[in-house]
Amino acid sequence: MIIDQLATPLPGSLLSTLPGSAYTDAAIFASEQEKIFEKMWFCAVRASDVAVPGAFRTIAVGRESVIVSRNRKGKARAFFNVCRHRGMQICSGEDSAGRRTFQCGYHAWTYDLDGVLIAAPNLTKMPDVDRADHGLRRVAVREWLGYIWVCVADEPPSFDETVLGEVVDRLGEVSNLDRYAVDTLAIGRRIVYDVKANWKLIIENFMECYHCATIHPELTEVLPEFADGLAAQAFVNHGAEFGAEIKGFTIDGSVGHDLLPGVGADQARKYYAITVKPQVFINMVPDHIIFHRMYPVSPDHTIVECDWLYLPGVVESGQDLTASVELFHRVNSQDFDACERTQPAMSSRVYRDGGVLVPAEHHIALFHVWQQRMLTT
Amino acid sequence: MIIDQLATPLPGSLLSTLPGSAYTDAAIFASEQEKIFEKMWFCAVRASDVAVPGAFRTIAVGRESVIVSRNRKGKARAFFNVCRHRGMQICSGEDSAGRRTFQCGYHAWTYDLDGVLIAAPNLTKMPDVDRADHGLRRVAVREWLGYIWVCVADEPPSFDETVLGEVVDRLGEVSNLDRYAVDTLAIGRRIVYDVKANWKLIIENFMECYHCATIHPELTEVLPEFADGLAAQAFVNHGAEFGAEIKGFTIDGSVGHDLLPGVGADQARKYYAITVKPQVFINMVPDHIIFHRMYPVSPDHTIVECDWLYLPGVVESGQDLTASVELFHRVNSQDFDACERTQPAMSSRVYRDGGVLVPAEHHIALFHVWQQRMLTT
Amino acid sequence: MIIDQLATPLPGSLLSTLPGSAYTDAAIFASEQEKIFEKMWFCAVRASDVAVPGAFRTIAVGRESVIVSRNRKGKARAFFNVCRHRGMQICSGEDSAGRRTFQCGYHAWTYDLDGVLIAAPNLTKMPDVDRADHGLRRVAVREWLGYIWVCVADEPPSFDETVLGEVVDRLGEVSNLDRYAVDTLAIGRRIVYDVKANWKLIIENFMECYHCATIHPELTEVLPEFADGLAAQAFVNHGAEFGAEIKGFTIDGSVGHDLLPGVGADQARKYYAITVKPQVFINMVPDHIIFHRMYPVSPDHTIVECDWLYLPGVVESGQDLTASVELFHRVNSQDFDACERTQPAMSSRVYRDGGVLVPAEHHIALFHVWQQRMLTT
Repeated sequence: MIIDQLATPLPGSLLSTLPGSAYTDAAIFASEQEKIFEKMWFCAVRASDVAVPGAFRTIAVGRESVIVSRNRKGKARAFFNVCRHRGMQICSGEDSAGRRTFQCGYHAWTYDLDGVLIAAPNLTKMPDVDRADHGLRRVAVREWLGYIWVCVADEPPSFDETVLGEVVDRLGEVSNLDRYAVDTLAIGRRIVYDVKANWKLIIENFMECYHCATIHPELTEVLPEFADGLAAQAFVNHGAEFGAEIKGFTIDGSVGHDLLPGVGADQARKYYAITVKPQVFINMVPDHIIFHRMYPVSPDHTIVECDWLYLPGVVESGQDLTASVELFHRVNSQDFDACERTQPAMSSRVYRDGGVLVPAEHHIALFHVWQQRMLTT
Repeated sequence: MIIDQLATPLPGSLLSTLPGSAYTDAAIFASEQEKIFEKMWFCAVRASDVAVPGAFRTIAVGRESVIVSRNRKGKARAFFNVCRHRGMQICSGEDSAGRRTFQCGYHAWTYDLDGVLIAAPNLTKMPDVDRADHGLRRVAVREWLGYIWVCVADEPPSFDETVLGEVVDRLGEVSNLDRYAVDTLAIGRRIVYDVKANWKLIIENFMECYHCATIHPELTEVLPEFADGLAAQAFVNHGAEFGAEIKGFTIDGSVGHDLLPGVGADQARKYYAITVKPQVFINMVPDHIIFHRMYPVSPDHTIVECDWLYLPGVVESGQDLTASVELFHRVNSQDFDACERTQPAMSSRVYRDGGVLVPAEHHIALFHVWQQRMLTT
Repeated sequence: MIIDQLATPLPGSLLSTLPGSAYTDAAIFASEQEKIFEKMWFCAVRASDVAVPGAFRTIAVGRESVIVSRNRKGKARAFFNVCRHRGMQICSGEDSAGRRTFQCGYHAWTYDLDGVLIAAPNLTKMPDVDRADHGLRRVAVREWLGYIWVCVADEPPSFDETVLGEVVDRLGEVSNLDRYAVDTLAIGRRIVYDVKANWKLIIENFMECYHCATIHPELTEVLPEFADGLAAQAFVNHGAEFGAEIKGFTIDGSVGHDLLPGVGADQARKYYAITVKPQVFINMVPDHIIFHRMYPVSPDHTIVECDWLYLPGVVESGQDLTASVELFHRVNSQDFDACERTQPAMSSRVYRDGGVLVPAEHHIALFHVWQQRMLTT
């Protein structure tokens, strides 16, 4: 009576996605936390969020709470947010003013801004306690693009091969991104999204534009080729061209803001997008950068923090950024809504063996291969 | 000091219930979803809820979301609520107005009202994609008693042997129910109950009347024999007789509404009840039908949707149904409260081997045998 | 790049705590419920909470709901809160007025105040049902210090060896506690705390005073030696002496209330504390007793109920107890806040092998040995 339609082998036009369980299984998610988010470089905070020595922000990296801060020389530092004595969290929330030491609120164990234990009640009576050995456990840090990237792994992978490698794969060479001088820009707007969907659905959504005609009317107005479903990320260094009538990357195609000075003539009317696995999207347009960081919380819950970055003069002048911010804020809202409405089906029997990828989405299969490889090594 | 009273073998008057874990264990509940609710016929929606072609309502059947609708010829149809492309839910909530197609909101894959894939971006460039093979996965449907029943199993069991078989077991022959012409009635009132108890506690409660004297003062006033604890369902085709002073099946025994024309003289002052496993209760009185459908959510959570059905003329006339509805609404509230106060003890060590059934409840043991058999086959 | 600091063996000044998983793992918590809270004597309610025959209070003991009450002779009684018929909870909440029987609200099975089944519908037709065999299952009880202690184990351990044994270990002899005549005192104030932390963190916190200088400014003002981190519990029968200027155990050192008459000269200006594993803290000062009972709910959630006990005349007179109560209420708040901020780090990789105990905390290791032994026997 019911024909098992899934038994039919897939035609050549279609590739299979991951099975539904990859998006719902708590054990798979725990494995992703351990083998992806706690092993790879993770883009943590904007450098300006912790501008001065002792300023800090605490963030979740995989299952760990991490303090991101700066030492007395202004060098970025990150620590596991765990006192080495009895484990109380040393810091909570954020503090932009900066403090001179990190002191645990429980028994007053006190660490300097490089994490070394410098004081504790009766510490002088425990001469065998080495102050470096019992310092805050360090987390590897790297500043790039004006963000502090961290890695909680004992042996971080090569930043150049992994993070920069993604940029090379996408743009051909890192210099094509360097021209935007992202590290010199200022935050014009930050929006945090609470998305009830698996992090991989968000990446898959970002990787393809087959959905653009259906859910992104404003974006396809600005970037007409997106209506054809061509992913900006499908070809090396391809940028999507603004429509003929479009004056800027804004919700209504009106003029945007001051152009980033390093942007070349070939990039001046184009949109580029880069996915830096596992949790960063970089969107480049001539007058600003839209920078997404994902924080996976559970198999069906992901926090996404998105920064809109402009020339400091644009932000300082108090210009109205509404039309500029609104375009990608609407795209984000449309995308995350789609992901949230996709998540429930991941546990259906119909999706047990996954769904299908059409030719315009075939490159997503490479992301699936990567995820599988990360979990099995 | 503490005597293990459970070690005593049960006297002949008492039968054992299921062990407490049957009502609390997540694995047992998952097995029930798989082997009972996703294998058997499930009463989904009132036919009038989806009156016209393309009208739909989405419901949970076991762990699946199902779209219940009608095709262009008005024939009932049901589908897994999962786009065959990337899995987004095709429909949400309900729509009584009716639509011409089902279109996925993500990439615009579009299906006709029989579920066949009829359009998708670039579909013409994928000639190898068979439109029937990639149509919405069909769910078996059957209309009966004015309800649309569905079965998400690949091989549905015989409707006659299972659903109708329950009616025969209870009433001797289906014609005793047919006389009420339940399919011709209109919904006078619908109440949805959120019950924090296992679905089996609700069935066991419905199957016995040993509790009636204690918790149903209004019902035993109308049906005096219930005060003796006699279950209406204990004997084939037994109906509980109204009290001598009782004029109708109402909260105060006052006159009810127009009698259902097919009801025979022998049924004219009686209440009958049928349990159609696994999730339907049918209550028949001379002037209306009270029809319960259960939707199990988790081991300790069940949604119950209850319809009060009257002759269309009664509903259209705008008559005050309060006294009529209130009687069984109060019974429902009393029963579900009892189930909710029973649920916590299911995890007690005292209930590890279950409780006991007195003679007036012995027929519940057959329900337990059925549940055990369903899980082991 | 990252040095595995945990690989370094601990110096002699430091002992290891339990591993982080001991505070987060659901299986370990379930094992603690079974092998500690459901095996040992558990301090349930103040005797005056159930002052008259048939008065009751329902409480959670491990994973069980227990009714604590008194029989017609006023003798303390406790029962599993599970009807022996179909399992409904017999009682909910509390009732200080007292009732003559316990009647189940579902099918009216009725038990006397000793738990014997005395009535049920049709019970006379079931002569083979023994009324004692099917009575409420009894829980062992014992009154001591004006509290009703219960044990849900089939074979309770010796009260003298376990509960009194803790007092002897701490005070040298029970008579040192008897002098406070705790059973004669009245409740001046009761505060219930909802603590989002593992119960063992709360015990460990109570056992040491290394944190006192950091988080308890008011307490160290009253008990100056606490500023040195000396645990009151570290030495047999040691009491912490009030500061020279201190007139009473109050938030501002002002005079307290009427002294407990049995308190000796040696105890008159001292604070003593006893931990009665697994869930009681007794704090003794000259004019009152502060008595904590913990109810563990989940690995990271514990309810703590704290009574301030005074001479009945003090309570009856309506004296203002604010300054007296406020001191330890503030201590409780400070301690529970510390525990809540410690809980999150228990799941960090950094705490996988636990934290460290300094010499002033070394006695906590004995608590860890005890917990380990309880779980493995």
